[in-house]
Amino acid sequence: MSVIWGVGLGPGDPELMSVKADRLVRGARHVAYFRKAGRPGRARAIVAGMFREDAVEIPMEYPVTTEIPLDDPRYNEILSAFYAEAAGRLADLARGGDEVVVLCEGDPFFYGSFMHLHSRLKDVADVQIVPAITGMSAAWTATGAPVTWGDDVLTVLMGTLPEAELTRGMLNADALVVMKVGRNLPKIRAALAAAGKLDRAWYVECASMAEERVMPLSEAGLDTAPYFSIVVVHGQGRRP
Amino acid sequence: MSVIWGVGLGPGDPELMSVKADRLVRGARHVAYFRKAGRPGRARAIVAGMFREDAVEIPMEYPVTTEIPLDDPRYNEILSAFYAEAAGRLADLARGGDEVVVLCEGDPFFYGSFMHLHSRLKDVADVQIVPAITGMSAAWTATGAPVTWGDDVLTVLMGTLPEAELTRGMLNADALVVMKVGRNLPKIRAALAAAGKLDRAWYVECASMAEERVMPLSEAGLDTAPYFSIVVVHGQGRRP
Ligand SMILES: C[S@@+](CC[C@H](N)C(=O)[O-])C[C@H]1O[C@@H](n2cnc3c(N)ncnc32)[C@H](O)[C@@H]1O
Ligand SMILES: C[S@@+](CC[C@H](N)C(=O)[O-])C[C@H]1O[C@@H](n2cnc3c(N)ncnc32)[C@H](O)[C@@H]1O
Repeated sequence: MSVIWGVGLGPGDPELMSVKADRLVRGARHVAYFRKAGRPGRARAIVAGMFREDAVEIPMEYPVTTEIPLDDPRYNEILSAFYAEAAGRLADLARGGDEVVVLCEGDPFFYGSFMHLHSRLKDVADVQIVPAITGMSAAWTATGAPVTWGDDVLTVLMGTLPEAELTRGMLNADALVVMKVGRNLPKIRAALAAAGKLDRAWYVECASMAEERVMPLSEAGLDTAPYFSIVVVHGQGRRP
Repeated sequence: MSVIWGVGLGPGDPELMSVKADRLVRGARHVAYFRKAGRPGRARAIVAGMFREDAVEIPMEYPVTTEIPLDDPRYNEILSAFYAEAAGRLADLARGGDEVVVLCEGDPFFYGSFMHLHSRLKDVADVQIVPAITGMSAAWTATGAPVTWGDDVLTVLMGTLPEAELTRGMLNADALVVMKVGRNLPKIRAALAAAGKLDRAWYVECASMAEERVMPLSEAGLDTAPYFSIVVVHGQGRRP
């Protein structure tokens, strides 16, 4: 049985892929990736032009995205069936002796979609993970300042959390990262204000990509943000 | 004036360096790195054998490490003078027209020593940072399971914090990373027990290196850990 590789591609700049990811993607005979129906796929965009000529692409198209609310029980059912079907396809290929590379944005084991395949494949196939540079590393690098110093506590929050939980997480942290910003931007702003950290917050869009934008959150003046956006608050720990 | 590069090398496996870091290190005429007196240097070890033949090495040797306690005022004074001197040396090279690559373990802006050079150089030189895979990404990858799911809150704590602060940070988080384990291991264990997370904690030594070791923390049975060690507690968020 061949290996199924979960390959982290990093934050977007192809030069920020690891040497190992670069090697695996260029050599892959089968390349699988998630995408929304009718879209090119965000992970695939990072490696455009890198596949060998005879590479077979396996797009895995999400059945639902924003049409059904997260808390509707059908949301989990439909997604779960989708992941099971995709995992089955990849396992069949591996059983047939073909290595498969699954493209993952950022680091696969850090809030990635690949983990939903991984949990279904790990007991029936040889799954290997290649870690990668996270979107947040590219984001704090783009701000031009270290995110953590000395004994700073860093907390990573999802913008999808309720406002009260965001505020509580922000109060307990020295340095902060908020991901999944999107339509949650007004709520994130309110939570930052309640936690006294709004004036130190940075907004980073498409970190390390050609379209990268970086500014203090106060200057962003947006009510909604694109998918690839992150809020960063730097720590202020001990610095000799 | 030439660029001073702060180049993240990732967690230890040279194949986990970014394509960009690999290119910069192989092409560098001047390579600077921190090390303890009499030691080869941890960052330099990652790129052993990669320098061009005429590369000039600039080891920057720490004047103090564990001899003076962290809270002794002399500690900060001595370190501060050391960083100022090292920054001055690199700025002189850049002013003379020479590019300098500074080797950094993991990601430079994530609890790295390079930030102490960066804060002294950013207003007098063109400093560019290359982000990298963090030690913690390699550590959770080594455990074979995703660290965060759904809306999990991830908190990163330094083992050097007082036990009460460790416990508080652990209680407020779903997923956890504790760095700077070393002699703080018994204190970290006690805090994990108080936060009810000891039985789910993993211990990872030298993640992604040849000497990598991974085990449940309960099986580690150590009172002290090497420099490159991390404790990971996985989140248990929503998973379709
Ligand atoms: C499902 S998570 C995937 C995270 C990814 N596995 C990683 O390691 O960064 C998607 C979120 O990551 C963040 N993100 C990832 N890459 C980014 C980038 N280059 N710039 C800004 N945000 C990014 C955004 O907040 C986005 O909503
Ligand atoms: C001064 S911090 C530097 C962190 C680094 N800049 C990064 O991005 O990972 C040093 C701590 O990082 C952790 N660390 C870094 N690389 C590691 C690895 N490969 N395996 C285990 N721990 C690691 C250890 O906890 C160590 O005490």
